[in-house]
Amino acid sequence: MNLGLIGFGEVGKSFVKLLKIREELLDGIKLNYIIKSNGGIYNPEGLDIKSIINHIDKNIKLEEHPNWKNINIDNIIENKDIDCLIELTSTNIKDGEPGYTHIKKALTNKIHVVTGNKGPIIHYYKELKSIADNNNRSLKVGCTTGGALPSVDVGNSCFKGSKIIEIQGVLNGTSNYIIEEMTNSKITYIEALEKAQSLKIAEANPYLDVSGYDTAAKMLIISKVVMDLDIKDIYVEGIENIGLYEIENAEKDNKKIKLIGKISSDNKNFIIEVKPQLIDKYHPLYSIDGKNKGVYYKTDILGDLTIIGGASSPLNAASSILRDLISIC
Amino acid sequence: MNLGLIGFGEVGKSFVKLLKIREELLDGIKLNYIIKSNGGIYNPEGLDIKSIINHIDKNIKLEEHPNWKNINIDNIIENKDIDCLIELTSTNIKDGEPGYTHIKKALTNKIHVVTGNKGPIIHYYKELKSIADNNNRSLKVGCTTGGALPSVDVGNSCFKGSKIIEIQGVLNGTSNYIIEEMTNSKITYIEALEKAQSLKIAEANPYLDVSGYDTAAKMLIISKVVMDLDIKDIYVEGIENIGLYEIENAEKDNKKIKLIGKISSDNKNFIIEVKPQLIDKYHPLYSIDGKNKGVYYKTDILGDLTIIGGASSPLNAASSILRDLISIC
Repeated sequence: MNLGLIGFGEVGKSFVKLLKIREELLDGIKLNYIIKSNGGIYNPEGLDIKSIINHIDKNIKLEEHPNWKNINIDNIIENKDIDCLIELTSTNIKDGEPGYTHIKKALTNKIHVVTGNKGPIIHYYKELKSIADNNNRSLKVGCTTGGALPSVDVGNSCFKGSKIIEIQGVLNGTSNYIIEEMTNSKITYIEALEKAQSLKIAEANPYLDVSGYDTAAKMLIISKVVMDLDIKDIYVEGIENIGLYEIENAEKDNKKIKLIGKISSDNKNFIIEVKPQLIDKYHPLYSIDGKNKGVYYKTDILGDLTIIGGASSPLNAASSILRDLISIC
Repeated sequence: MNLGLIGFGEVGKSFVKLLKIREELLDGIKLNYIIKSNGGIYNPEGLDIKSIINHIDKNIKLEEHPNWKNINIDNIIENKDIDCLIELTSTNIKDGEPGYTHIKKALTNKIHVVTGNKGPIIHYYKELKSIADNNNRSLKVGCTTGGALPSVDVGNSCFKGSKIIEIQGVLNGTSNYIIEEMTNSKITYIEALEKAQSLKIAEANPYLDVSGYDTAAKMLIISKVVMDLDIKDIYVEGIENIGLYEIENAEKDNKKIKLIGKISSDNKNFIIEVKPQLIDKYHPLYSIDGKNKGVYYKTDILGDLTIIGGASSPLNAASSILRDLISIC
């Protein structure tokens, strides 16, 4: 199986390293392309992974690699020499581009897709899944809903024969860290955010994480991929207005505040709500802390199931891309 | 797809009810046999599920059903009219019989098997799986390792590309309940056991549950089915000797005692240890209580994952049989 990788941020770089770390598992798998927005490297016989890892480790730009060319997704399509596209360009929550175009072109041309990009999945999952099905190819999106946490895999494989009634998720590591820091160090939201930024846990522009929109995007994807829903009714509230006194009051009562995304039904329609919630120790997501994530599924005949894990790291996220790739193989 | 059911205890009865509850999902599925140790009921056109549920609800013996005959597994094999055997006879931890004979005959004759019976899987998994593979049929054992808790499904589907380094499980609901009762009601082991027996949470002979052997059996099955191991080095200690003072000391330190089964490696070989452990709130299985169960998986590149759920009930256990059946369909 031949691969093409589009997007070469931290997760893309870790994915290339995994191809080396797990080479004994990946016999017969070649990486033919790594493409960035301004060009990429290509070798129809398979790129030399060691030389790329050398570039990454020595912080040498990919542009200086001897195989660097002015290529893009269209060259992949014309050359017809890959079986699976790994799409890891940055999430654009507004219109899903350029990921949407990449994924659509690949699937239309009978190329499997594994992506960690939430944008195209939020906006175009139904269309893209239908193109994949019509072409007998796979579209795997496990990395988009909590990285290594197998939210979608568990949702799709562990509840056969039962009906999922409700899903709750603590899916934003940054928010979780900030709330925990406010609790442990008795500091304000702004102080905790600055600490998270200095540790690179929060981005310079933390808006998507702290506003609740990242959580909403992940819950929306779970609702589409696991429950086959098309929810329009979404309420989103972030953590920016949580005061230290609220954290302290929660702690006094042995409770915690968590940013929780919830898919539930009012008996007619399913809705998504994302907002900070005061929860006690009996809540299934109470024990999640630090950079961990968790999802709680409530079913009709299989009882409840909570999964906790998926600590945020580029290697863990890349491992979830590898997991999806191997399940296609 | 035509089914045969052997074993008609609480889980078997709940399974028959599920065939009615989920009939919209099970179009084309017929139940041709229900077999007990002294005979069974058979209809080559498919049994009338409603009449059987009527027997169950009114507590009428199956022996009084108009289709009752002197039949056993050999009639199923001779008649060649089922595609899948649901094997739910009682677990016999000594030699796995009669489940082993039932499962082996079915698989050898190209009949899929779904079972909730730990005995044959502990003793003969490798042989039975090999017969299944050679005949291109499935042997599904999800119900044997925690009922509705998808220990095996998650283990097999969520860690592709990574290596599982360690697994810990709190898998015996009875022990978990007894320890919790000792903690909450400040009563001795014997008093808590009697309470569990009066509530039918513990059996009249609770030996397998409280001795740790049930947990060991489940961990052994997980090690075989998920990790493809053949562990001989197994240490088992139960909960019978836990004193109330130990429970109280744990509580003073904000800790809990849990009966934990652990699969881990000493860098050469994997071993299984089952024993009561003192754990603090940072332990991933700390929050499991009541009749719930949980499994913690530690991997090399996908981080850690904990699953919690699967509260014990015949309906939940039967739902996990249905889950395995649907994944064969």
